[in-house]
Amino acid sequence: VRLAPEVADALLERWPVARLATLSADGRPHLVPIVFARRDGALWSPVDGKPKGGGELARVRNLRERPRVSVLLDHYDADWRRLWWLRVDGRARAVEGAPDAGDAELAAVAAALRAKYPQYAEWPLFRGRPLLLRIAIDALRSWCAGAEGLREAQRASRP
Amino acid sequence: VRLAPEVADALLERWPVARLATLSADGRPHLVPIVFARRDGALWSPVDGKPKGGGELARVRNLRERPRVSVLLDHYDADWRRLWWLRVDGRARAVEGAPDAGDAELAAVAAALRAKYPQYAEWPLFRGRPLLLRIAIDALRSWCAGAEGLREAQRASRP
Repeated sequence: VRLAPEVADALLERWPVARLATLSADGRPHLVPIVFARRDGALWSPVDGKPKGGGELARVRNLRERPRVSVLLDHYDADWRRLWWLRVDGRARAVEGAPDAGDAELAAVAAALRAKYPQYAEWPLFRGRPLLLRIAIDALRSWCAGAEGLREAQRASRP
Repeated sequence: VRLAPEVADALLERWPVARLATLSADGRPHLVPIVFARRDGALWSPVDGKPKGGGELARVRNLRERPRVSVLLDHYDADWRRLWWLRVDGRARAVEGAPDAGDAELAAVAAALRAKYPQYAEWPLFRGRPLLLRIAIDALRSWCAGAEGLREAQRASRP
């Protein structure tokens, strides 16, 4: 069973977490959880101030060379009638900038991220120079286990 | 911060859900949530009776041709100090069989899945002929946000 377009749309707006799959140079998929906000029809995920290893992140290195990515939003529940998922197949690029220095697009994205995640009052949105992943949506696929899954997704899609 | 080996080990045993990334023929990663049980050091995920589209599933088609996969276990929390993830880089293969007809390995895997997921009392473990993905673990990577993340992962790793 597929999610209704308006439910999928609202989940892209409000669901707090997704898993991002990129492709490594050696042909292996690479997976990491991400936070994201939608702006102008794309998903934006910041390389933020949560603790990370040194050097350029694998996700960034991968998508600079191989931009096709997959992003999964989903709900797990011990009651399997409530399961749903929503998958974005897209193309990603790394966007660098300085939203505090007059870049209107990045400032708007930063504002969308701060509005969605009050956590950024305590956590740095960027580490030094701003760096975000911009994921353009090529296709959406969704699934749910049935009427209970639809209801669960609808509940999650409401403000 | 990395998770302690014994915590990672217990999470592979007990955490109920993961996200599986395979690689499509056109070079795009493909993502889907999975349930799984560990048996003899590998992760096993059944193509079970939850509603699915017709034909061979993309995950199965992909890994028959391109066995390298990535599997992510993670915890999302509004309190970002509690975040953790555990990633398995592995090689997958599709295993077909008939556990009710004397295949001891598949019978043991089916028993492990039924023990981990009481849901299989109500949901079919297989659809017709048994089909499972067997994911051999090549490498484990883990991350957590700090002391609170370690505690959260420890809590989740206990019976």
